[in-house]
Amino acid sequence: MFQSFAETAGPEQGPPRLARLRRAMAEAGLAGFLVPRADAHQGEYVAACDNRLAWLTGFTGSAGICAVLNDAAGMFVDGRYRVQAHAQLDTDHFTPVAWPDTRPGAWLARHLPDGGPVGFDPWLWTPGQIDEIAGALPDSVRLVPSENLVDAVWPDRPAPPRGPIRPWPEDLAGAPHAGKRAQLGEDLRAAGARAAVITLSDSLAWLLNIRGSDIPRNPVPQGFAILHDDGRVALFTDPAKLDDAARAHLGTDVACAAPDAFGPALDALGGPVRLDRKSVPVWVVQRLEAAGVAHVWGGDPCVLPKAKKTAAEIAATRTAHLRDGAAVCEFLAWFDDQPVGTLTEIDMVTKLEQCRAATGQLLDISFDTIAGSGPHGALPHYRVTEATNRTVRDGNLTVLDSGGQYLDGTTDITRTLPTGTPGEDERTAFTRVLQGMIAISRLRFPSGLAGRDLDALARYPLWLADMDYGHGTGHGVGVYSCVHEGPQRLSRQSEVPLESGMILSNEPGYYREGAFGIRIENLIVVRNAAPVTGGDGATQLDFETLTFAPIDRRLIVADMLSAPERDWLDGYHAACRDKIGPLLSPRSRLWLERQTDPL
Amino acid sequence: MFQSFAETAGPEQGPPRLARLRRAMAEAGLAGFLVPRADAHQGEYVAACDNRLAWLTGFTGSAGICAVLNDAAGMFVDGRYRVQAHAQLDTDHFTPVAWPDTRPGAWLARHLPDGGPVGFDPWLWTPGQIDEIAGALPDSVRLVPSENLVDAVWPDRPAPPRGPIRPWPEDLAGAPHAGKRAQLGEDLRAAGARAAVITLSDSLAWLLNIRGSDIPRNPVPQGFAILHDDGRVALFTDPAKLDDAARAHLGTDVACAAPDAFGPALDALGGPVRLDRKSVPVWVVQRLEAAGVAHVWGGDPCVLPKAKKTAAEIAATRTAHLRDGAAVCEFLAWFDDQPVGTLTEIDMVTKLEQCRAATGQLLDISFDTIAGSGPHGALPHYRVTEATNRTVRDGNLTVLDSGGQYLDGTTDITRTLPTGTPGEDERTAFTRVLQGMIAISRLRFPSGLAGRDLDALARYPLWLADMDYGHGTGHGVGVYSCVHEGPQRLSRQSEVPLESGMILSNEPGYYREGAFGIRIENLIVVRNAAPVTGGDGATQLDFETLTFAPIDRRLIVADMLSAPERDWLDGYHAACRDKIGPLLSPRSRLWLERQTDPL
Repeated sequence: MFQSFAETAGPEQGPPRLARLRRAMAEAGLAGFLVPRADAHQGEYVAACDNRLAWLTGFTGSAGICAVLNDAAGMFVDGRYRVQAHAQLDTDHFTPVAWPDTRPGAWLARHLPDGGPVGFDPWLWTPGQIDEIAGALPDSVRLVPSENLVDAVWPDRPAPPRGPIRPWPEDLAGAPHAGKRAQLGEDLRAAGARAAVITLSDSLAWLLNIRGSDIPRNPVPQGFAILHDDGRVALFTDPAKLDDAARAHLGTDVACAAPDAFGPALDALGGPVRLDRKSVPVWVVQRLEAAGVAHVWGGDPCVLPKAKKTAAEIAATRTAHLRDGAAVCEFLAWFDDQPVGTLTEIDMVTKLEQCRAATGQLLDISFDTIAGSGPHGALPHYRVTEATNRTVRDGNLTVLDSGGQYLDGTTDITRTLPTGTPGEDERTAFTRVLQGMIAISRLRFPSGLAGRDLDALARYPLWLADMDYGHGTGHGVGVYSCVHEGPQRLSRQSEVPLESGMILSNEPGYYREGAFGIRIENLIVVRNAAPVTGGDGATQLDFETLTFAPIDRRLIVADMLSAPERDWLDGYHAACRDKIGPLLSPRSRLWLERQTDPL
Repeated sequence: MFQSFAETAGPEQGPPRLARLRRAMAEAGLAGFLVPRADAHQGEYVAACDNRLAWLTGFTGSAGICAVLNDAAGMFVDGRYRVQAHAQLDTDHFTPVAWPDTRPGAWLARHLPDGGPVGFDPWLWTPGQIDEIAGALPDSVRLVPSENLVDAVWPDRPAPPRGPIRPWPEDLAGAPHAGKRAQLGEDLRAAGARAAVITLSDSLAWLLNIRGSDIPRNPVPQGFAILHDDGRVALFTDPAKLDDAARAHLGTDVACAAPDAFGPALDALGGPVRLDRKSVPVWVVQRLEAAGVAHVWGGDPCVLPKAKKTAAEIAATRTAHLRDGAAVCEFLAWFDDQPVGTLTEIDMVTKLEQCRAATGQLLDISFDTIAGSGPHGALPHYRVTEATNRTVRDGNLTVLDSGGQYLDGTTDITRTLPTGTPGEDERTAFTRVLQGMIAISRLRFPSGLAGRDLDALARYPLWLADMDYGHGTGHGVGVYSCVHEGPQRLSRQSEVPLESGMILSNEPGYYREGAFGIRIENLIVVRNAAPVTGGDGATQLDFETLTFAPIDRRLIVADMLSAPERDWLDGYHAACRDKIGPLLSPRSRLWLERQTDPL
């Protein structure tokens, strides 16, 4: 079982650790210290040794900053985590701060009227982040790089992970790593740079066609790399992670060394070195500056080519989704068979993981399954624990958001499951969410548009009823990589043009606090749209749906759907039957056939 | 008759004038001279004396720049005007340049390899425009303020307009100008400025509750003003425009003086003076700098409050739209009565203006009526002349886009009219355009969103069929003021949040080159949306429709509409009947009743 249901932190752990940190601050002559959730690779998940924020505060969300001063500790959490932060923090000692409404710079300026130095670990912060905070500070408050004072007062801090690195098959990747390296090296040279520093784990994984096991849920290796303009790469990671097969795969143009060789290698660069302001640690910038090596700002060169999947990656991902869809259908058929009132949220998570594991190919889950029933469904990122677990009752909806990591792909699917007889409010809201989800599924749009230009299409049916959801419509997804992958998003915040080959989620929802939640999610991949007879012959993109599992018709108010919406749903269900049916047990296949009858 | 059908310029006029301008450049020691369409007030329409671009080149479009060098004259025109520019220019002497694909700075850099000074009239250019051009130039090319060399070689240049200024009734404006001046003065002071310079004609009109008659179609006065932080205003305009009634209306806190007093008044300011980079003439900046008066950049303080109409302005506008809708219906009823093949585009324009004039309250048309039949309909900004006039034939669609200026409001309406039996391609495309137009009409959306966030909703039905339109979905509209008013727009280019009281057009279209065009346009006004039972109680906005005239049902493929779309259309038609019917002649009322039957 990958998922656990334990509470991994509690409010009581924070105050004594906070006191120890403050003593360390006094010894270091600091008026404050900034503790982020992030590690040196700015990933969404962190290794146990990097989980400093949770260790210090008790807050286990995937994003946050604790700004520790002598007489205040501001815990910055975004809208997803406000409720959770209040539950997990000892609020006598930690003050939740609404982020980004209040920004750390403004908060520090207000809470340090007498000024003073505020320390930060230069490995854990990017220049973009530090500049934003520093820009809001008065002259009397300075941000100063410091050793990590949390590590200094964390006696039993775990060792860094040493998860094996394995080659990722070239027939899945669709391109040899030598070709990727050569192309990016050429691009660097054309842009006037001699090398680039790469610190994002999924960029490393993509560039070298490798996968790792340092971090739960994200099968990517932690390390640092220097890409030279001739396509050679120097990779800095614990040598114990690399066996002979991995070394043979990397070949002679990828030199491997321990992490402590990274600094001297930076010193020896000829420059200019391209750095990504949004991901490189401040430490790297300081090191290059100290060595007199010039740098230029530019994005991580892997990010965009990684997002535009190859035909082989898309083909692999299709296979993974069929396997995963079958596992989900086995679960759904089982779920529909259970008497009302007999299942808990943990039962559902456990059974679903068993169904995925039964494929024999599950390497991890994509993220901790969200199984929020009744009012828990209204918390978009709910994680069930032994303490919160509840029995699913008649009339409850359960938001079930889950995914699997397979060698050939990463899945992410949400279905909303009724138990017993769902209410009319729930059905009406579900139908509106479905209409938004169908609008994105059916979309064709001119090439060049970004998520920002399209996000409203998924919300329109909800807006008409004074409803909405407080998250983006979709995020990028990797192929046997991170389930949250940039830069593409379907969101009002995203200005990145969508391009053929980008995989995204399509997941509108609706959340009525204290009552119920709804979300419907398929993964989709951007492709060049087929010509339309009578159309203008413009360059258009559309989406191929990757996820196949039925959408519960008991929750649909059929009269609310337009004819094209019904046609889409019936066609989707027919595809589910055709593609998934042959992969199911006979009993589940019968269930699927009933579920996929036309509306 | 306000509209004329004469060609006002021809390709033959340009070359001799260009030669004279080049001689003047040589005498002034200039390697180039920049001639914009704009006047000192950056308006869309210009007075005859300011129509330098048309005089010099023959091009009569509402936006463009001619960059005159000794051996080249680049005529920069945007997508709307590419076809027209080729027809109106002598292209042996003037080279059309696609703008903004190619920007004037880059073009100058390429065409002046040996460098040299390029002159511009500092009254006609804003700092924003000049900085953008200058930023793309090499050191060897300099932009230098100069007297206007076009005026120097234009022997019979008309005199500046001296159109009377008239008070605009306070019961229509909904707020006295003293209150507006006091509030803006207070805002200036709070922002640390002592005064603001106002040069936009519609800002002047709004601030002082006046209207003017200097410029065709736009009933706003030309002038310059200084708004002081105590609410006093100094207005610089030809004193002959102001009669006793206007002076009494302006009162003692609005000092009036001739335009040549503007410079000395700037010299005497204490500063800091707020200037709008996007509208103030460079001349003003130079004058303030020469006098040692500090300035700060900020928007024209009138623009946003002007866009948020008062309840009185909205009420007035509703009345104007009913009157105008009745005139349009009288026209449409007449049009439907004419035998196929008997009408020309000019006949339609003439009759429509007669119907509006018959209200007895038409003060001007809002813009030259666009009556594009058959292939002319595919030119979104077509203006019919004696030379282009064509007879409307069986099967033709005619895009008829027009409006009236009344004391109580400015209208702008487009209907697409079938003659005889429309084709199926036309009907299908029309229905998709209608679906987009209905989507905007029905929209409710969270407060805080901008046109950019919403524009896609109008295009979705077209995109699905590989169709689109090359203009924004809507522009801001004034109240007895400019028919194109900023800052609000329904456009991917607009980041301005929509606010209650803003009037916009809602005008999706479709244009098949060489074949036909379609556009459907109503004006709408943003309002606070009424609560929805079962909704979240969020702060939402929606649109009240202002325009009432039937949408031709013969062009609608009813089966393509969803039930809510049909309901909207039937409800809209019922409103047309209820609101406009009582204003019509008996014969036209019968026509309206037939036209507004439910689908």
